[in-house]
Amino acid sequence: MTTTLLYVEFSSDGPFGSDAATAYAELAADIAAEEGLVWKVWTENPQDDKAGGVYLFADEESATRYVEKHTARLGSFGITDATMKLFTANRDLSETTFAVLDKP
Amino acid sequence: MTTTLLYVEFSSDGPFGSDAATAYAELAADIAAEEGLVWKVWTENPQDDKAGGVYLFADEESATRYVEKHTARLGSFGITDATMKLFTANRDLSETTFAVLDKP
Repeated sequence: MTTTLLYVEFSSDGPFGSDAATAYAELAADIAAEEGLVWKVWTENPQDDKAGGVYLFADEESATRYVEKHTARLGSFGITDATMKLFTANRDLSETTFAVLDKP
Repeated sequence: MTTTLLYVEFSSDGPFGSDAATAYAELAADIAAEEGLVWKVWTENPQDDKAGGVYLFADEESATRYVEKHTARLGSFGITDATMKLFTANRDLSETTFAVLDKP
């Protein structure tokens, strides 16, 4: 099993902050139940009209499956310019720098 | 205090994996002591000749200071093409999806 990081970025004019927390609460609960997900950080940059997320998955298969699912979901929101990049997490180095790499 | 995510990506022909863990062990220990750092995931994609990292900082000032420091450090390694992007972490949504947002 290869611990896999997924980086997602797309153009967004909001909602951001607490408005996003309200608007996406149900989506976040759904993503929390995603098979193989360890965690997701929700990212936003209102100054640059960008939003996205950084995900850690327990294995590459879960990450690849999620890319397909999330591309379709973003498309249903009208977001078709999403950048998605997959990386292997270097576990030894990441443990030294306090990253959580596994579900409790 | 604004929990801030920093995304870093650059071209790399290695080392990757356990070779990287050995080569960068001392650097990782130094980064672990960085003021304001909550965690870093070390990322690598040997197929695309890419490497980088995703960092979470407790506040924007620490992240901004690190960008300056790390740009100089990467330059000393001959890495001058690094992409660095800063985002605010949406804490409410990220907590729902299990992200660790604070140092223990």
